[in-house]
Amino acid sequence: MAWQDIARAKREAVDSGIPRKWRLEDIPSVDEVRSVIVYIEEKLNEKEVEITNSTVVELAEKISRGELSAIEVTKAFCHRAALTHQLTTCCSEIFFERAYKKAEELDEYFKKNGKTVGPLHGVPISLKDQVNLEGIDSALGYVSLVNKPKTKDEVSNIAKILEDAGAVFYVKTTTPTSMMAASTSSNIYGYTLNSFNRNLSCGGSSGGEGALVGARGSPLGFGTDIGGSIRIPSTFQGLYGLRGSSNRIPYCKVSNSYAHAPVLASVIGPMAWDLNDLKLVTKLIIDSKPWIHDPKVPPIPWREVTDYPKKLSFGIILNNGETKHHPPIERALQMAKNALIAQGHEVIEWKPPVSLIECSKLASTIFGADGYQEVLDECAKSGEPLVKEVLSGDDRPKGISHIHEYWEMAKLKYEYQHKVDEYWLSTALQTSTGRPVDGIISPVWESCSFRPPDNDLCSLSYTSSFNVLDYSSVTTPVTLADKEIDLQDDVYKPMNAYDKALQEYYDPELYHGTPAGVQVVTPRYEEEKAIYLAGVLRDSLRV
Amino acid sequence: MAWQDIARAKREAVDSGIPRKWRLEDIPSVDEVRSVIVYIEEKLNEKEVEITNSTVVELAEKISRGELSAIEVTKAFCHRAALTHQLTTCCSEIFFERAYKKAEELDEYFKKNGKTVGPLHGVPISLKDQVNLEGIDSALGYVSLVNKPKTKDEVSNIAKILEDAGAVFYVKTTTPTSMMAASTSSNIYGYTLNSFNRNLSCGGSSGGEGALVGARGSPLGFGTDIGGSIRIPSTFQGLYGLRGSSNRIPYCKVSNSYAHAPVLASVIGPMAWDLNDLKLVTKLIIDSKPWIHDPKVPPIPWREVTDYPKKLSFGIILNNGETKHHPPIERALQMAKNALIAQGHEVIEWKPPVSLIECSKLASTIFGADGYQEVLDECAKSGEPLVKEVLSGDDRPKGISHIHEYWEMAKLKYEYQHKVDEYWLSTALQTSTGRPVDGIISPVWESCSFRPPDNDLCSLSYTSSFNVLDYSSVTTPVTLADKEIDLQDDVYKPMNAYDKALQEYYDPELYHGTPAGVQVVTPRYEEEKAIYLAGVLRDSLRV
Repeated sequence: MAWQDIARAKREAVDSGIPRKWRLEDIPSVDEVRSVIVYIEEKLNEKEVEITNSTVVELAEKISRGELSAIEVTKAFCHRAALTHQLTTCCSEIFFERAYKKAEELDEYFKKNGKTVGPLHGVPISLKDQVNLEGIDSALGYVSLVNKPKTKDEVSNIAKILEDAGAVFYVKTTTPTSMMAASTSSNIYGYTLNSFNRNLSCGGSSGGEGALVGARGSPLGFGTDIGGSIRIPSTFQGLYGLRGSSNRIPYCKVSNSYAHAPVLASVIGPMAWDLNDLKLVTKLIIDSKPWIHDPKVPPIPWREVTDYPKKLSFGIILNNGETKHHPPIERALQMAKNALIAQGHEVIEWKPPVSLIECSKLASTIFGADGYQEVLDECAKSGEPLVKEVLSGDDRPKGISHIHEYWEMAKLKYEYQHKVDEYWLSTALQTSTGRPVDGIISPVWESCSFRPPDNDLCSLSYTSSFNVLDYSSVTTPVTLADKEIDLQDDVYKPMNAYDKALQEYYDPELYHGTPAGVQVVTPRYEEEKAIYLAGVLRDSLRV
Repeated sequence: MAWQDIARAKREAVDSGIPRKWRLEDIPSVDEVRSVIVYIEEKLNEKEVEITNSTVVELAEKISRGELSAIEVTKAFCHRAALTHQLTTCCSEIFFERAYKKAEELDEYFKKNGKTVGPLHGVPISLKDQVNLEGIDSALGYVSLVNKPKTKDEVSNIAKILEDAGAVFYVKTTTPTSMMAASTSSNIYGYTLNSFNRNLSCGGSSGGEGALVGARGSPLGFGTDIGGSIRIPSTFQGLYGLRGSSNRIPYCKVSNSYAHAPVLASVIGPMAWDLNDLKLVTKLIIDSKPWIHDPKVPPIPWREVTDYPKKLSFGIILNNGETKHHPPIERALQMAKNALIAQGHEVIEWKPPVSLIECSKLASTIFGADGYQEVLDECAKSGEPLVKEVLSGDDRPKGISHIHEYWEMAKLKYEYQHKVDEYWLSTALQTSTGRPVDGIISPVWESCSFRPPDNDLCSLSYTSSFNVLDYSSVTTPVTLADKEIDLQDDVYKPMNAYDKALQEYYDPELYHGTPAGVQVVTPRYEEEKAIYLAGVLRDSLRV
């Protein structure tokens, strides 16, 4: 069968998972419906709106008190996800019937035993396509991997942990082919749109997750991140997204590109509207002792942040030295800074001895160690061309010619980590707290997003640099782009051609209403603290 | 300068660090002096014998009470090390004067402040040549690396931690060129002999350390292990040696071959006569929070083993399915088993789904990923030939031709770990405790050692398999080879040609008096438990 036919059949099979009553007769154009949320809330009933606007914490509580049933919660999110998918193409797999069955079993259990099976009893959780579930594909955007459902033995550890806690799975979400892109596009599903602004990309590679959770078609989902793939779609959709340090959260049996390339590891982590939900789920996973069943997970228990000093000190990254942010991002960064200072915290400039650009370049070299041969080989199996967004011909790295080059990358990564770690410690000399800065406030991306299919307008410097350093990071929403405030800066002289193109790309009208945020970064394996500090920023912004 | 001249000059420079009064007029032959200890104790005065037969715990206590001074302790060990070196060639660097200066400073501090600088105040600690000290080479047995003293910035983290605790450094110890061997031989120093039996090899690659600590020329030293290099010389000299899981103890700035090859990491760890000393030093290192200054160290604090159940269950590895051990090892294994059973513990056979041989073969493939190009390149710099013990021409692996082969090794390693971890958990179904086995009792090597230069008589199956699995292991001495008991088994039918050669190699007279031991293995990052269980075995054997 031609790859086009396989792709079409798969797409149709996914869409057929949406019951007829929830299908939109006409998909409104981007001009008609820019933001998904208002439009879809009109299609939901009052109860569905209430349920889908609840946090995980609220849902779990209400279910545990018998005030909501698992099945009604599941149905509400299925409905909202179905609508979101039709406007953004965010789902790679839809299996509502299976979810209902599970939800009904949970309700049955609750009725019989008068208690829940676990802290996520009846809560729908969405999963990036990579997470393996029995009987369902993990195609990763490759036509060659369609119709190869995963077996029971292949089920991801993270899925088991969540399911043991009572979670209900109902959809998996789109990725770009191979996941090696900051947008989400494949020959199977096409392009996934931003749920806040359908003119724009949802980001990537956990883009389907970003669009779905962004429209509250899921209360919380899981993405993965090797160069920014959790953080980019999280910030593009105004979400809290956790990129933890390597293997803090178990990646065991999650399908992946370059699954065992050992120098730079992809991590899996939650993306959510609500920071408390992010914490609940992260803690729950770590409390399950994931190192018992995943040899890569270091045995670090959850360490609750308690009695943390009141006055904090933050490093702030103003820019990477090569570009100026678009006005909404610039404003978000200043808002974050000002809010922290207004609460009595201290903010000093973060000037590490290894630049973001250097770190990020090293990440790209590591990603391209095989000249992307694995990606090209997988595409060749079905004959599909590689989508433009993943890799244009010109950009294709040559890859290494000797294993020693690869080991040199590993060495350089370690040296960068060591130098920046020592710099971090040295900031104690600059702070008034006497401690090194507690965290770093950094942009995630230079703009709020970009127009499909302009994937080339991207710099991973603010994201992949932290993958190289392996620091923990939580994206934190700050504001929305506002065409009245975020005006083009006509006086600014661009630093270089790329910066010039970036500035010219900005259009207040285009970006209006799109989320703008930052990330809060902490040292390696300080996920608890990253979540805590994101909360400090959130609270400071709310004052 | 010809490499021979550089090597000779270096050797002479090292030997010149021994004061004239401590030089032996004639080095006795192996036939004249088989075991080092009795011979050298006759050369020491009573006080020196008493000091050098003390444990680290005892020395530290006496120094802290003012009953011993740092300088007298240091001098006693310097004397004993000097004698041991002359009989075994165990030291790669000798710097007694520097040690005296340090010891005198410590005594001064103690006199002035009435307290010690830390828990190792005045205790001499020896270091494998790899550990960088300011102003001293870390030649790793390579002529090309001679006369390249390390700078202050290059000092190993582990050296700093030990020095901060008050340790006194006085020697570094020999390694085979590149460290990739189970014996200890280089063109600089020649061959290092076993201090219990100078007919035999001290083992390797931390062989100098094994010989030195074995003769109590050091109360405790540090070796490294990527395939058995701590455990082989430890067991050959009847020592407790800890091979912890990857980077539990910081390797930062320790010179190394294949320093950043990311699939299989060498680890650093202590080797000691006394298990309590091993624990003291390991705990002290981990309590120093080594992750703060080493990006590779996972932040796992010391977790004291307390309230552990009284009845334990052990898995035992009887053999690798390809060879029978020499009689002393077979006896040691049975003694360990019987002693545990006699104390009410349970011992069941360990039959993992991935064999030791498979794990060990994978290790060799990973070690040889570059066809040992790095080693050959380093030798080429000085023109020295590679010593036979490290790699014979026939054995040289081809190395990989594509990075994907390397990633496949990483994948296989993970799969092996996963399968054996799950098997370990499944042993709960076989034990009477209801828990998985608490630890594994395994041989370390099929014989007590081998004659120089017979390095080919070796199988890493009992050692490198645990590097692949990344389990924690503590070697535990059990007995000494006894020519009256450990007779040749004339009835035994060898399983294969290698086994036949191994059996024929055995000679009760040759091995008489050489230590025979086992290793106690626990899951990944369970160093505390490995030390605890080694203590259980030790105590069981003493009953």
